[in-house]
Amino acid sequence: MTREIADRVEIIFRDEILPRRADYDRAVDVDGDLEPGFLKALKRRAFAEGLWNMALPRLADDEPGTRLTNLQFAPIAEILGRVGWASEVFNCHAPDVPNMEILQMFATPEQKARYLAPLLLGETRSSFAMTEPDVASSDANNIATRIERRGDRYVVNGRKWFATGAANPKCSLLIVVGVTDPGAPRGRTHSMVLVPKDAPGVTVVRKIPVMNHVEHVAPHTELLLEDVEVPVENRLGEEGAGFLIGQARLGPARVHHCMRAIGRCEVLIRLMVERAASRRTFGTDLRDYSSVQDAIADSRLALEQARLLVQRTAWRLDREGNKLARKDISLIKIAVARAYHDICQRGIQIFGAMGLTDETPFAESLSQARAFRIYDGPDEVHLRTVFRLEEKEGDGLNCSKDYLGRA
Amino acid sequence: MTREIADRVEIIFRDEILPRRADYDRAVDVDGDLEPGFLKALKRRAFAEGLWNMALPRLADDEPGTRLTNLQFAPIAEILGRVGWASEVFNCHAPDVPNMEILQMFATPEQKARYLAPLLLGETRSSFAMTEPDVASSDANNIATRIERRGDRYVVNGRKWFATGAANPKCSLLIVVGVTDPGAPRGRTHSMVLVPKDAPGVTVVRKIPVMNHVEHVAPHTELLLEDVEVPVENRLGEEGAGFLIGQARLGPARVHHCMRAIGRCEVLIRLMVERAASRRTFGTDLRDYSSVQDAIADSRLALEQARLLVQRTAWRLDREGNKLARKDISLIKIAVARAYHDICQRGIQIFGAMGLTDETPFAESLSQARAFRIYDGPDEVHLRTVFRLEEKEGDGLNCSKDYLGRA
Amino acid sequence: MTREIADRVEIIFRDEILPRRADYDRAVDVDGDLEPGFLKALKRRAFAEGLWNMALPRLADDEPGTRLTNLQFAPIAEILGRVGWASEVFNCHAPDVPNMEILQMFATPEQKARYLAPLLLGETRSSFAMTEPDVASSDANNIATRIERRGDRYVVNGRKWFATGAANPKCSLLIVVGVTDPGAPRGRTHSMVLVPKDAPGVTVVRKIPVMNHVEHVAPHTELLLEDVEVPVENRLGEEGAGFLIGQARLGPARVHHCMRAIGRCEVLIRLMVERAASRRTFGTDLRDYSSVQDAIADSRLALEQARLLVQRTAWRLDREGNKLARKDISLIKIAVARAYHDICQRGIQIFGAMGLTDETPFAESLSQARAFRIYDGPDEVHLRTVFRLEEKEGDGLNCSKDYLGRA
Amino acid sequence: MTREIADRVEIIFRDEILPRRADYDRAVDVDGDLEPGFLKALKRRAFAEGLWNMALPRLADDEPGTRLTNLQFAPIAEILGRVGWASEVFNCHAPDVPNMEILQMFATPEQKARYLAPLLLGETRSSFAMTEPDVASSDANNIATRIERRGDRYVVNGRKWFATGAANPKCSLLIVVGVTDPGAPRGRTHSMVLVPKDAPGVTVVRKIPVMNHVEHVAPHTELLLEDVEVPVENRLGEEGAGFLIGQARLGPARVHHCMRAIGRCEVLIRLMVERAASRRTFGTDLRDYSSVQDAIADSRLALEQARLLVQRTAWRLDREGNKLARKDISLIKIAVARAYHDICQRGIQIFGAMGLTDETPFAESLSQARAFRIYDGPDEVHLRTVFRLEEKEGDGLNCSKDYLGRA
Repeated sequence: MTREIADRVEIIFRDEILPRRADYDRAVDVDGDLEPGFLKALKRRAFAEGLWNMALPRLADDEPGTRLTNLQFAPIAEILGRVGWASEVFNCHAPDVPNMEILQMFATPEQKARYLAPLLLGETRSSFAMTEPDVASSDANNIATRIERRGDRYVVNGRKWFATGAANPKCSLLIVVGVTDPGAPRGRTHSMVLVPKDAPGVTVVRKIPVMNHVEHVAPHTELLLEDVEVPVENRLGEEGAGFLIGQARLGPARVHHCMRAIGRCEVLIRLMVERAASRRTFGTDLRDYSSVQDAIADSRLALEQARLLVQRTAWRLDREGNKLARKDISLIKIAVARAYHDICQRGIQIFGAMGLTDETPFAESLSQARAFRIYDGPDEVHLRTVFRLEEKEGDGLNCSKDYLGRA
Repeated sequence: MTREIADRVEIIFRDEILPRRADYDRAVDVDGDLEPGFLKALKRRAFAEGLWNMALPRLADDEPGTRLTNLQFAPIAEILGRVGWASEVFNCHAPDVPNMEILQMFATPEQKARYLAPLLLGETRSSFAMTEPDVASSDANNIATRIERRGDRYVVNGRKWFATGAANPKCSLLIVVGVTDPGAPRGRTHSMVLVPKDAPGVTVVRKIPVMNHVEHVAPHTELLLEDVEVPVENRLGEEGAGFLIGQARLGPARVHHCMRAIGRCEVLIRLMVERAASRRTFGTDLRDYSSVQDAIADSRLALEQARLLVQRTAWRLDREGNKLARKDISLIKIAVARAYHDICQRGIQIFGAMGLTDETPFAESLSQARAFRIYDGPDEVHLRTVFRLEEKEGDGLNCSKDYLGRA
Repeated sequence: MTREIADRVEIIFRDEILPRRADYDRAVDVDGDLEPGFLKALKRRAFAEGLWNMALPRLADDEPGTRLTNLQFAPIAEILGRVGWASEVFNCHAPDVPNMEILQMFATPEQKARYLAPLLLGETRSSFAMTEPDVASSDANNIATRIERRGDRYVVNGRKWFATGAANPKCSLLIVVGVTDPGAPRGRTHSMVLVPKDAPGVTVVRKIPVMNHVEHVAPHTELLLEDVEVPVENRLGEEGAGFLIGQARLGPARVHHCMRAIGRCEVLIRLMVERAASRRTFGTDLRDYSSVQDAIADSRLALEQARLLVQRTAWRLDREGNKLARKDISLIKIAVARAYHDICQRGIQIFGAMGLTDETPFAESLSQARAFRIYDGPDEVHLRTVFRLEEKEGDGLNCSKDYLGRA
Repeated sequence: MTREIADRVEIIFRDEILPRRADYDRAVDVDGDLEPGFLKALKRRAFAEGLWNMALPRLADDEPGTRLTNLQFAPIAEILGRVGWASEVFNCHAPDVPNMEILQMFATPEQKARYLAPLLLGETRSSFAMTEPDVASSDANNIATRIERRGDRYVVNGRKWFATGAANPKCSLLIVVGVTDPGAPRGRTHSMVLVPKDAPGVTVVRKIPVMNHVEHVAPHTELLLEDVEVPVENRLGEEGAGFLIGQARLGPARVHHCMRAIGRCEVLIRLMVERAASRRTFGTDLRDYSSVQDAIADSRLALEQARLLVQRTAWRLDREGNKLARKDISLIKIAVARAYHDICQRGIQIFGAMGLTDETPFAESLSQARAFRIYDGPDEVHLRTVFRLEEKEGDGLNCSKDYLGRA
C-alpha cells in the first residue's frame, strides 16, 4: 500500500508541483502571495484523495488523512524534499507536523478542537517558540522566558527568535516554552502554553535573515512577548512538562527533516552527474576528472549511509518510541546535516560560479544545510548525547582487562 | 613610514568607519544610497591626506596618492578588510584596483587620460567582464564572446556574468574579454576592449544573487552585449593579448583579496574568543569546552600560516613579478579561501543560531568565503597549476633512484 | 538459528580465544609456532560442533560445516574480527575463504577433490597471487605475469607480491593470475591457474613488511615464478576467465573483511570509552573533554553507518548476486576502511603514547586499516566504480531540465 | 656564510650519506652494529671540518663545532631530515641536542665537564626520561616518579617509557624528571636529576615498538628505576625547576624536529611527482588524474605554509626566546605533524601497495609522523595552549561591541 501511495504522490509531484517551481517562487517572492491559487487547489486535491497528514503516525481514525508509520513515510518524504513547498500540498510540512504531533499527544479535547483541528485541515499555521536570542538555547535549561501563574491565567514575558513561521500572516498559534517554576527540580522547571498569535502583548519583531536569506512562508521569526495573558487551560500537558513535550516533539520532527533532506540530495547528486557530463575544461570533460568522480561518489557514499541510518531510526521510533531511539535520533541529525552540507559544497565546486547563483538549487540548499547543523541543537550537543549514551550502554563492561596489556 | 601610514589608516578606521557600520548598511540596503554623504567626506579626507591609491605599486609620480609595494600594503589591507566598504574610503577597493592596474600597465596615454584618470580620483567605477554563464569559464579558452573587427571598430557580442560592479550606476567602464581571432594560436585568441557602459547594445540584465545575497555596491552583474561597437583605439594592449593582461591582472588582485580576508578573519577569531568567554551551556562556560578551544586554536593556526604565505607572495610579486610568483599566487588563493571558510564555519558553530543571522558578521563572511573558493578560478584550477609547476621545478631530478628500493 | 550459532561462537570466543591472546602471540612471534596446540584443539572442537565454514554461502550439502548466508554470517564475523586469529578457529579466515569460494564456483570435480577438500577441512592453506610489484595492479589489465600454453601444459613466468599467506609453510596452493592471450579482447586476456607451491620454479622471495610490520601467519609474500609448469587441467575456469573469477572472488571477500573490521572497531570504541573514564589531565577527566566525547561519538556514527551499509550489501549479495551488488561492494570498501582508520586515529589520540605501542590494539589496527585502504583496490578505484555506476543508473534522466534555471 | 655551510653539508649528504642508506640499514637491522665504521669516519670528517654541533645556538666559544642560530640551522636541518641517521654524522641528532642544550643552560661546571663534554664530542649518548606509562603524561603535573632527598643523595623510584635512546648501549646518561616536593606550589613540584645509566637500580626493561616498529639506535625505551641513588650534586638546576627546564628544552627540540620533518617531506613530494609521471592505470597516466594532482598540490601547500611558520618560530626563538615564542612553538608542533602525516598518507595512496612496504620511505615516515602527533604533547595539548594565549593576547579588547548587533 505504501508503495502505491508513494507512486500517487510522485505523480502529483511530477505533474503538478515540479512544473510550477517558477510560478511558486514568483508568487511568493515577487507578488507576496504565500498561498497562491494553484497551491490551494493542489491541497484540496490531496485532501480529497486522502494524500494528507501522512507524516502523523498517531493520526486518529476520525482525523482527516492517511496514517502512516514513520518508516512508511520515508519514501514519500524523500519525494517531498525535492522542492521546498511540496510538503505543504500534502499537509506534511514543518513546523505544523511536529506541532500537531504534540497536540495529538498532550492536548486536552478542548485544546484539540480549537487548535489541532484547523491545523489538521491545513486551514491555519502554527509556530513553536522556544529558542531565545539572549541565552545559549542549545541547553534548554537556559530558556528564560517567564510563564507566571496569576490566578487562573498565565502571564508570559520573554523574547524568542527562530520561531519558525510565526511571521506568516496565516499563523494563528504560538506554542511557547518558558519557566513556570524556577525552583523546581531540573527538568521540571519549564512548561508550554498555547498562545493565540493575536493575543495582546505578542509582537512580531521581524523575519530574521538566515545565511543572508529571508524566508517568507516559514520565516525565522523574532517575537516579543510582553505580559501576554492566556487562561491556565492553555497550558499544554502538565506544569513542568515543557522539556518532556519538547523531547517528544523533536524525534519525529528530526526524522522527517532528515528524510526530506535526503530526497533533496538525490536531486543534487543527479544534477552533479549531468553537469559533469556536459561541461569541458582544459580539453577534458568534467566527468573525466577523477576529482569530479570522487566528489560524486563520495556524495553517494554519504547519502546511502545516511539514508540507511534514517530508515533504521524511523523503524525504531515506530517500534520502540522516542526514548529508546534517542541515540539514533542524535546520530541522524549529525549525519544528515553533514551529508547534505558536503553534497552542496561539492556541487558548487562542480557547477562553478553558477552554483553560487539562483540558477541551481545548490546555494539555497547549502544555506539550509548550514542552518541544519544548528537547528534542533548544534552537532556538538548531539555528539555529547551520543557519547553519554555510549558510556551508559557499556556500563559494567571491562574490555580493557581483556584487550589491553602486551598480548 | 609604512607603519606610520598604517597607524593613520587605523585611526580613521577606528574613529570614522567602524562607528558608521550601521549607518552605511542602512544607507545602502534601505535607502539605496550607494555612496552616502559621510563616505564622500571620508574619501575627500583620505585623498587630502594622501591615504589614497595605496594598493597600486605602479602608481606614477604624477598620479594621486601614495605608492606602496604589495608587501607594504599588507598591514593596511588587513585593516581595511575588517569592514566591507572601508577599502573604498581609500580608493583601494576591488575591482577598481586591479582594473586601474592593467590600465597603468597596458593603456595608451589617451586611454589613461580618459579611463584611468577618473578611476584614480575615485570619481567613477569600472567592471571587468570576463566570466560567461554559457561556458566553463575557469578555462579562459572557453570564453566565447566575440569581438569582431569591422573596419576601424570592434563589434562585441556575448553574454557575461559576474562582472563585478557593472550594475552600480556609478560604473562607467567595462573591460570586456572576448575572441578576436578564433584561429590564432592558443593563448593569442582573445583580446580586451574598453567599453563605455552607456554604449548602445550594452544591457545590464540583473544583479545576480550569490549565496542568496544580492550585493548593491559591487553587484555580480549579468550583462548582455549585442552588437556593441567601440573604436579600435579602445582595444587594451595588443590584439591577442587578452590572456596576458588577464594574468597580469590576477596576481595583485588575489593578493589584496587575500590580505583583506585575513584582516576580516582576525576580527572573526576575536569575536569567537569573546563569545566563548561569555556564554555557558550545560553548566560549563563555552571557553572550557575543549572543542571550542580547538576551534579557535585551529583558526589561529590556519590564519597565521596563510598570512605568512601571503606576505611572502607579496614580497615575491614586488621583487620577481607576477610570473615567478605564479605558484605562490595559486597557493594563497587556495589557502586563504579555505582558512576564511573554515573560520566562518567554526564561528557559526560557536555562535549557534545567532551566527546564522545578520547580528554577527559570520553569515555574510561565510557567503563571501564560499564564493572566494570559486572566484578567480575554483580551487581545483589552482591545485592543477601548482601541480604543473611542481612537476616543472623538479625537471631532471631523479629522487626515486636515491630513495626507493629496499634500503 | 543464526542467533543461536552466534551465541555459541561468542562463548568459545570469550572462554577459549580471548584468554589466549598472549599465548598465541608468544607462540607465533617468539616461538615461531604458527599453529600452536591449543589452536589445533580449538579447530577440532569447532569442526566437531559444526561451527565451521560458516563464511561459505555456497557450502555444498556434502561439505563439512554449516552453511550461512552472507547476512547470517555478519554477527559472527563481527565476533571473530575482535582478535586476529579467531577466524581461523572456525575455518572462516582469509584468504582461504575467498579462495575456497572460487574453487566452489569454478573448479572441476577433480580440482575440488585435490585442492578444495583439504582447505574445507582446514588441513592446508592457499594463497591468491595477483598483485605485481612492477605494474599498477589496481588496474588488473596491467597484470603482466605470463601464463603460456605449451602443449598440454601452462608455463608461468612473473613476479607477484602481496600474495597473502604464501610464505606460511602450511600453504600448499597458489592461485595465480596471468596473461594467457595478450591479443584477446579486453577482459578476456587473463586466466587463473592452480599452482602447487612446491612446483619447480616457485620461489618465496620474502615476507614483505607492511606498515613496518611482518606478518607470519598470513604474510604478504613476494613470489618469483620462473618457468613454472602446470598441466592444462590446472586452469581454473575457462581460458580468459581470469577477471570474471577475480570479480566473483572479491565481493564476499570484501564483505567479510568489512564485517570483521566492524567487530574490531566495536572493541576499539569500547576501549576509548573506558580510557576516557579512567584518565585525568589538567584537572579534568578525559571523559569531560568535549573533544574526547566528540571523538567517541563520531566513531560511533561512522561505525553505525558503515555496519548498516555492510549488512545491506550482504543482503544484496545473497539475493541479487555479486554483479548487482557491485556499487554497494565498492561503497563498503571505502566506508569501512575509512571508519576503521579514523577510529584507530582517534583512539591513539585518546590513549596518547600508549596508543602507539603494543599495549593496546590501536597501532596494529591502524596499520591494518591503513593497508585496508589499498588492498582490493585503493579507495580511488572504488570511487571511480561508484561514479561510473551512478552515471549509468541515471541514464536517460534529465533533472537539469526540471531543476536548473531561475525558478 | 650559512649558505656556504649548507652547501658543504649538502655535498657530504649527497656523496657520502645518501649512497650508504642501504649499508646503514643493513648494519643496524641485520648486523646490530649501531655505529658502523663509515659512520664513525663521517663523524670524524664532519668534526674536523667544523660541521659539528650546528644545532646548538648556545655553543660556547670553547666548545667544538660551529654555532648557528636556530634560523640559520633551518636549511641544514632540512637536508639532514631526508635520511634518519644523517643528523648523527654532524652531532645534530635528537635527543642529544636538546639534552646538551639544557646542560649548557642549567648544568654546573662540574656537570658540564662530566656529562656535557663527551656529548659535545659525540662520544656518548643521553636520554631524557620524563613520560610515564602509568599516568597521562601530557599533563606533566601527573609525572609520579619520586626523587626523594636522603641526606646528600637523591633516591629515585619510578617507571618511565619513551625515554628515547636509553636502550642504546652507547647511552650513558639519563636525565630523569620526578617529584621532589609534592607539597610545593604548582609548577615547583618536580626536579631533574642526572642519572648515570649504569647506576644500580636502573633497569632497561625493553625497547617499545612504536607503530609496530622497534627502533634500535634511538629506541623508545621503558625503564625501571628502583632505589636509584645519585648525589645531590646531580640535580640539574634548582630543586623544583623541573618544569622550567622541561619548557626550555622543548622549544628548540621541537623546532629542529619540525625542520627535519620538512626536509623529509620535500623528498616525499618529489617521489610522488616522479611516481605520478611513471605509472599508468585505466589508460591514463597517474599524473593526469586530477585527484593525484590535487594530492601533490595540497602537499606542497601544507608544506610551504608549515615551513614559513617554522622559520618565523626559529627567528622568534633566536630573538625573543622560548617564552615569547611559546604560541608559535605550539603552532608548529601541530602544523608540521599534520602536514607530515597527510603527505605520507597521500604518498601511500599514490604508490599503492608499494607505499605500504619498505621499498619506499612512506610507511616508515607515516609511523614517525603518526607518533609525532603524540610526542612532546599530543596536538590537543598544544591547541589548548594556543587557545589560552589567544585569550590572553586579546585581554581587554571588546570587538563584540563594535562588530556584533545588526549593523
